Amino acid sequence: MNPLLIRKQLEAFLNEDLCWGDLTTDALLKDETAEAVILAKEEGLMAGGPFVAELFNLLGPTEVKLLKKEGESFKSGDELVYLKGSAANLLKTERTALNLLQRLCGVATAARRLVKALEGTGVKLLDTRKTTPGLRLFEKYAARVGGALNHRFCLSDAVLIKDNHKKLVGGVRQAVKLVRERVSPVYKVEVEVESLDELVEALEAGADAVMLDNFSPEEVKEALKLVKGKVLVEVSGSVTPENARLYALKGVDFISSGYPTRRAQALDLSLEVL
Amino acid sequence: MNPLLIRKQLEAFLNEDLCWGDLTTDALLKDETAEAVILAKEEGLMAGGPFVAELFNLLGPTEVKLLKKEGESFKSGDELVYLKGSAANLLKTERTALNLLQRLCGVATAARRLVKALEGTGVKLLDTRKTTPGLRLFEKYAARVGGALNHRFCLSDAVLIKDNHKKLVGGVRQAVKLVRERVSPVYKVEVEVESLDELVEALEAGADAVMLDNFSPEEVKEALKLVKGKVLVEVSGSVTPENARLYALKGVDFISSGYPTRRAQALDLSLEVL
Amino acid sequence: MNPLLIRKQLEAFLNEDLCWGDLTTDALLKDETAEAVILAKEEGLMAGGPFVAELFNLLGPTEVKLLKKEGESFKSGDELVYLKGSAANLLKTERTALNLLQRLCGVATAARRLVKALEGTGVKLLDTRKTTPGLRLFEKYAARVGGALNHRFCLSDAVLIKDNHKKLVGGVRQAVKLVRERVSPVYKVEVEVESLDELVEALEAGADAVMLDNFSPEEVKEALKLVKGKVLVEVSGSVTPENARLYALKGVDFISSGYPTRRAQALDLSLEVL
Amino acid sequence: MNPLLIRKQLEAFLNEDLCWGDLTTDALLKDETAEAVILAKEEGLMAGGPFVAELFNLLGPTEVKLLKKEGESFKSGDELVYLKGSAANLLKTERTALNLLQRLCGVATAARRLVKALEGTGVKLLDTRKTTPGLRLFEKYAARVGGALNHRFCLSDAVLIKDNHKKLVGGVRQAVKLVRERVSPVYKVEVEVESLDELVEALEAGADAVMLDNFSPEEVKEALKLVKGKVLVEVSGSVTPENARLYALKGVDFISSGYPTRRAQALDLSLEVL
Amino acid sequence: MNPLLIRKQLEAFLNEDLCWGDLTTDALLKDETAEAVILAKEEGLMAGGPFVAELFNLLGPTEVKLLKKEGESFKSGDELVYLKGSAANLLKTERTALNLLQRLCGVATAARRLVKALEGTGVKLLDTRKTTPGLRLFEKYAARVGGALNHRFCLSDAVLIKDNHKKLVGGVRQAVKLVRERVSPVYKVEVEVESLDELVEALEAGADAVMLDNFSPEEVKEALKLVKGKVLVEVSGSVTPENARLYALKGVDFISSGYPTRRAQALDLSLEVL
Amino acid sequence: MNPLLIRKQLEAFLNEDLCWGDLTTDALLKDETAEAVILAKEEGLMAGGPFVAELFNLLGPTEVKLLKKEGESFKSGDELVYLKGSAANLLKTERTALNLLQRLCGVATAARRLVKALEGTGVKLLDTRKTTPGLRLFEKYAARVGGALNHRFCLSDAVLIKDNHKKLVGGVRQAVKLVRERVSPVYKVEVEVESLDELVEALEAGADAVMLDNFSPEEVKEALKLVKGKVLVEVSGSVTPENARLYALKGVDFISSGYPTRRAQALDLSLEVL
Repeated sequence: MNPLLIRKQLEAFLNEDLCWGDLTTDALLKDETAEAVILAKEEGLMAGGPFVAELFNLLGPTEVKLLKKEGESFKSGDELVYLKGSAANLLKTERTALNLLQRLCGVATAARRLVKALEGTGVKLLDTRKTTPGLRLFEKYAARVGGALNHRFCLSDAVLIKDNHKKLVGGVRQAVKLVRERVSPVYKVEVEVESLDELVEALEAGADAVMLDNFSPEEVKEALKLVKGKVLVEVSGSVTPENARLYALKGVDFISSGYPTRRAQALDLSLEVL
Repeated sequence: MNPLLIRKQLEAFLNEDLCWGDLTTDALLKDETAEAVILAKEEGLMAGGPFVAELFNLLGPTEVKLLKKEGESFKSGDELVYLKGSAANLLKTERTALNLLQRLCGVATAARRLVKALEGTGVKLLDTRKTTPGLRLFEKYAARVGGALNHRFCLSDAVLIKDNHKKLVGGVRQAVKLVRERVSPVYKVEVEVESLDELVEALEAGADAVMLDNFSPEEVKEALKLVKGKVLVEVSGSVTPENARLYALKGVDFISSGYPTRRAQALDLSLEVL
Repeated sequence: MNPLLIRKQLEAFLNEDLCWGDLTTDALLKDETAEAVILAKEEGLMAGGPFVAELFNLLGPTEVKLLKKEGESFKSGDELVYLKGSAANLLKTERTALNLLQRLCGVATAARRLVKALEGTGVKLLDTRKTTPGLRLFEKYAARVGGALNHRFCLSDAVLIKDNHKKLVGGVRQAVKLVRERVSPVYKVEVEVESLDELVEALEAGADAVMLDNFSPEEVKEALKLVKGKVLVEVSGSVTPENARLYALKGVDFISSGYPTRRAQALDLSLEVL
Repeated sequence: MNPLLIRKQLEAFLNEDLCWGDLTTDALLKDETAEAVILAKEEGLMAGGPFVAELFNLLGPTEVKLLKKEGESFKSGDELVYLKGSAANLLKTERTALNLLQRLCGVATAARRLVKALEGTGVKLLDTRKTTPGLRLFEKYAARVGGALNHRFCLSDAVLIKDNHKKLVGGVRQAVKLVRERVSPVYKVEVEVESLDELVEALEAGADAVMLDNFSPEEVKEALKLVKGKVLVEVSGSVTPENARLYALKGVDFISSGYPTRRAQALDLSLEVL
Repeated sequence: MNPLLIRKQLEAFLNEDLCWGDLTTDALLKDETAEAVILAKEEGLMAGGPFVAELFNLLGPTEVKLLKKEGESFKSGDELVYLKGSAANLLKTERTALNLLQRLCGVATAARRLVKALEGTGVKLLDTRKTTPGLRLFEKYAARVGGALNHRFCLSDAVLIKDNHKKLVGGVRQAVKLVRERVSPVYKVEVEVESLDELVEALEAGADAVMLDNFSPEEVKEALKLVKGKVLVEVSGSVTPENARLYALKGVDFISSGYPTRRAQALDLSLEVL
Repeated sequence: MNPLLIRKQLEAFLNEDLCWGDLTTDALLKDETAEAVILAKEEGLMAGGPFVAELFNLLGPTEVKLLKKEGESFKSGDELVYLKGSAANLLKTERTALNLLQRLCGVATAARRLVKALEGTGVKLLDTRKTTPGLRLFEKYAARVGGALNHRFCLSDAVLIKDNHKKLVGGVRQAVKLVRERVSPVYKVEVEVESLDELVEALEAGADAVMLDNFSPEEVKEALKLVKGKVLVEVSGSVTPENARLYALKGVDFISSGYPTRRAQALDLSLEVL
């Protein structure tokens, strides 16, 4: 990750909450130092510790010990982070740090749930672009911590011919042809298909990968027979921890799902001064 | 809301997804125009339409009709927004707009659930600062749409003496005294209390409002007897639609809850080119 | 204060003067070190020393000793700041630092003059939003150094129903009612009144504080009889060190005045290389 | 002036006051339109009207009529600007616009006072870099409106060898020599001199202009005899409207003074909804 | 391309030259309108017209007619752009517009030269990341206009295992293995190879594409025999219009070259007021 | 140079290439350290070393030894910079650093070529504003390293009456008159002249400097007879290393040329991990 971008965003997050100062803390505290811990009040997966460490050092130097490793499980009552430094700075940064950490732990926890459901199948989990606006780098990081691979980060770094493209261009064949002409061969061409007919068309047009969108497990089986291992196969659409295993058939390369970012809940965390 | 700030954030959201261009769309489309709708795929409450309208006009003029009013309910299958303009721009803005709208509808839907639970009790719902980093203005807007009032936006606009402050300063009395000396009387002084003893101390120290933190309904009743209507009473801590009514006692002025932002889920929406 | 915001503004101030470089100094100096002092050429009150220290460290490390404490008086000829570091950097930062310091000392000096006039009356001085564009955080800081409390920082952090609001909404009563419905109870509601009739209306409508705008001392007395200590009373309008005492009647809680920022003059300071 | 820079600063000024919204106005007003005027409550010189017009159009289109031309005098009670548009936007922009206008009118008024003192002498007034941090472009504009010419805008656009340079480099001669070698001949070389001896040295070293710093009128006369019209002569130091004429001797090309920016006071203006 | 990013960069380019204003033009011109043309003073290929049109509209509305299409050839004396609008704005934007256009035409001209050398061979030209800092989007655009396809835009959008990677990781095989595990299959894996041995290793390791770096034409022939059409083949290293054809062997998919951006010269253009 | 501006631009350059991360390097490397050198693959002049050192420290601390001094010649095969630090950071910064260094060395090399051609004539080389958009500070720095003096940096820091100004205003005389009235005498007035007649007019109008634009050497001789040393003489237009000496006549003060920036080629450099 690019630390220059991360830094800029962390500063923006802190400014959003601290604004021009902390009315309460500035009235109450001067140079006191304090120790504190971030506590989990429900179970989950640790993700975002390094960002928290950086946040607590924006206003001044703070000692930060990450008590859980990225990707490590914790249960309610566990201490996640130990902090020591200016008491005022701890309180000014508290809410921003908790808000970020609770979200990222939530995303990682949800991702891990899906990854576990796929365990042993050899099928990998991919995340999506269904992220919270402004948080993509962070949420994709949390998805990785949870065990997912990152699908494309934005519209600039991969070709994915989607339903609306096909409608507007006049079909899969025409779309693949145009992309091949105009886009560097350095990029794979993936096509979202919604039926077996479209799949055949995509295979004939020379797609590098196909995304089977909203196929039932039975339809996925049919599709795999057509594909015969010649292109990468991604299954997508409403996959959850409950039904993931049904889609994780031999021949499927990866399953992509918005579940980790869309269904994640911010975990319950708190900061306690010792 | 300040449109200059909103504009800057919407541009950042779009840049996050569009980056330097849309590899796929730029290869496929030129000057085509298209019509599209944003469809709900689950039920919820509309929130964020005006931001969506502004987003779809960042890359060029687009006709946007909001088919649901802010705060209006929708069910699965409903059309929320009608769009007409450059096909390329519709596709380039699609994901960013959906990501924002699905989150804000999710927050408003959750807030409304709590507000409904309080209906008829006269107790108002307040939101919290437990928002997604970078999205506070938007999520507080969505909470309003859902029926909540906004508690403070940041650390600069209200005094709230919290647990950690009391620990560091040596108690409620000392904290209120210091704040009264150093902060303009234009701001109310609210104190978070964790026991009836602390409540008494806060009342004696001259707090303008008290936040009963993690009190049981019975403890709230005891507290109200001590308060006797002399200060504002806020009940806080783990309030959900299921238990809210238990806390909404006569004499409680408002209930604050992180539920709308922390437990919100991004609703399932899609954009379909017609 | 939020050091991230302060830093950004100090950099902008220095960039304004340094632009792409110092034609003269870059031609004349290389790695020379030098000592220098900032001298007062007229009397006043010290305010802004920490910002000066930060400014002189933007281009490289400089040793800065603040020879006067914030809020300490100085007379013509006094040394305010001692500096030691790169001679080139001292000269490149000189004008920006002096421009900021001379303004902030000017504001603090003017504020102190008003505070002195109120000494012993128990009435506190509040500043206003009549600040120089772009310098609000700094000028409000200087007003504090001079002994004032800060009234609201911006339009977002307090409710003040002013003359133009009343005109547009149809009177005090209606305005207070609307605000009570739509704004969180966390904020006090203050009403600017221009007559005893309006004062009565504001009291009946349930304002938390009233601002008596352009009342004569006699009118203030009448007003206080009506208020009877039930709400906070702020006196405002053309208050100067000369007439402040006339308004500082028992029962008045605070006097607000634009005098410290509007009538402040930039004090005469200079930087001398030793 | 560069409208891109101006725009960016005006937005920053408005954001400083509006922050995330106007608590009071947003609670009270919706789509009302209103007319208003900006009134002078003391006499002065108009400066900054175009910036005010731009400010009132940042939040939405507003009709703005400048009732006084730039540089035109006004007296107490005069209407300076007429406004018509969204009532909410007028109130949200009011304080920022007044704060800017009152400062710029103040600077122009002070500049004009000095220019009048020099009337008929043929000596021109120059401003200085003693401006309010962040406002240089605006204050230099106001000084021009008041009748001054602008001395250099920053350290990058002209060579001025000052006292501290001479001390560090070892005298006028050495300083001029170094600058001539290293700086493009496109820039004039001006030397600040503090005695007749230094003046002689500067003339011999080949300065293009000399600044007589803190010379008495008699010393200026002596200096002019030495200069004999061969270089430009600038008189500087504590020049005020009261004593300016004493320095405006035949042979002096221009007088520079920090008076317009350092001694300016923000004029008393108000915005009244009609 | 993302117009929001383009706009921000064009504004930065104009600010770099216009700074706080145009001393000369602001002294000479007021509201005059003028017509002007941009003339070529040497032959080349048109590229960048739309950016020029946008630049000339930053300070105010200007009529711009692009007299040559993107990718069209011109010769010395040809008129490239017709302009009509504020004379002052034309002069203030002139240098920035010419500087951008002369560079982009230069890049497109150089790219076209290479593309022509490859004509009829079926081998496509790819550009590189050897662009001028800050101008990548623009120079890659110009390369496209000249007939190249764009290789990756930055380090985030494609996998390319280069020489230094191999050294640090311990060889091609290990590098491909690690990338396959950690990077989404959505990205192709390209390996830069410097010998036939490395090529074999890359093929066995399962690379999707190979870049033959600094191979002689004979070595390329040997390489193609090993590849047998199984992966994409990119030839790279010191390819110029003079020698390109030697490398454009049957089986080579594309040739990448820094020539268009590194050897481009800014064409000689001028703006003449009519 | 202003290090705050330089830093901001270097960060932008790195962000342009690194975007949100380095797909390849992040998959391959963790905490390895490495040594590397930047090698010249063609001869030239060193320029930009300090920027390279700063670039390699943006992502983390790196030891950087500049093996060639600014302005020192190097030949193919020479090591220019030694680096030691995080292997990942070296690879992530590599391309940005090379792109900047290759361009600046190219500019300095071209400038030096012209300076050499003028050696012994006493005529100085001036650069122009014909720089790459966004790189002016850097390219003017490189021109200085190559031995040129910098002509004006932008439109704000010097007066140059050009051909288009004269056309629009009605001739040299009128233009000089207007500028003298409206611009501070701190700036020299230079006039571009295109004939001997215009030269006479410029001299009579009181220009401080004249730019002889596109004069032949013979015409320059005639011009010098008219000037008689009374104003500075700049020769401009299509001056190259080949013909420069023809223009470097006694009496010419300086020659300005876009050659160093317009005809510069990015030198061939590479970074090799040891």
